[in-house]
Amino acid sequence: MSSPEIDALSQALSRLPGLGPRSARRAVLHLLKRREIALKPLIAALQAVEENLATCDICGNVDTANPCGVCTDPRRDAKLLCVVEEVADLWAMDRARLFPGRFHVLGGRLSALEGVGPGDLSIAPLMARVNAGGIEEVVLAMNATMEGATTMHYLAERLADCGVSVTQLAHGVPVGGELDYLDEGTIAQALRARRPVA
Amino acid sequence: MSSPEIDALSQALSRLPGLGPRSARRAVLHLLKRREIALKPLIAALQAVEENLATCDICGNVDTANPCGVCTDPRRDAKLLCVVEEVADLWAMDRARLFPGRFHVLGGRLSALEGVGPGDLSIAPLMARVNAGGIEEVVLAMNATMEGATTMHYLAERLADCGVSVTQLAHGVPVGGELDYLDEGTIAQALRARRPVA
Repeated sequence: MSSPEIDALSQALSRLPGLGPRSARRAVLHLLKRREIALKPLIAALQAVEENLATCDICGNVDTANPCGVCTDPRRDAKLLCVVEEVADLWAMDRARLFPGRFHVLGGRLSALEGVGPGDLSIAPLMARVNAGGIEEVVLAMNATMEGATTMHYLAERLADCGVSVTQLAHGVPVGGELDYLDEGTIAQALRARRPVA
Repeated sequence: MSSPEIDALSQALSRLPGLGPRSARRAVLHLLKRREIALKPLIAALQAVEENLATCDICGNVDTANPCGVCTDPRRDAKLLCVVEEVADLWAMDRARLFPGRFHVLGGRLSALEGVGPGDLSIAPLMARVNAGGIEEVVLAMNATMEGATTMHYLAERLADCGVSVTQLAHGVPVGGELDYLDEGTIAQALRARRPVA
């Protein structure tokens, strides 16, 4: 090995999340041995995305179209808006295909430690979308972290007078979760939100 | 998400060894958010390899040059030849940079079950290299599997009359290995090959 091109490819791949130097080398070898069925298709797929890459002006999603496929999907309920921290969260919410509305990506979370204030997030565009009318419910789907909760409370306050109902995701025992492995915070929340057995 | 280009890229990446559908999506997102510093360099690295990809006519290594960088390296000892099953094994041996000689890739191992006979492996070219003279020792570095051992014994027999010394890798406790986690076969081999404490 040790050809400079192969080393460079190994390094480029090893910077992807989930791939270390060792698995990157394995991936390179996989590609080298499958020029037609793996290497060329991967190059083509990357180029197709690179050429069309765009950030949605409406919601902040990353897509190959602007506005993105979610914002332009006519089957989605325009009255429902789900606010998330990052594009990854939007994809995670959308993967389950359970949320029938549209999204808004903040681009982060409020963080005193990292010096992230309201002006650094896509909050003004969010307020503009809500104030433009047509939205009835805003679901605040921040991560269940301290900073996520801070961001959620800040947004709930800003949205209080907009005439929309503001909701948050339920906390509780994750599906498949075992009590023995859960932290006390989650158990406390699940207990507080307990409901009659149907 | 759900743009066809992004889905295609996700699928192409998820076919790499070590990346499942979930980590492929994370990798895609990583690339999309870093168009200039990750996506474009990865495309360039893949293209550079794709354009120059070659299988070495001498040893069977995959490289961007033919003959490959290992075969043309003047610092390597031409009298020493290490025979391996796959290109991955060559890279693994070469990673440690402890073997100062050259290599020969068989392209597999003898396997009655999979119907792989001597004619399916790069054995004739190996014999030709050895018979051409100049090689003094052939190290048979097959994997320590049943099929690797079969292949090794077959090659040792073929090489017996060539006037070269034929050696194999030592078996034993791997460095950092704990006896409690080793199989009996390895412990038996390590015990059989025990030597005085220096």
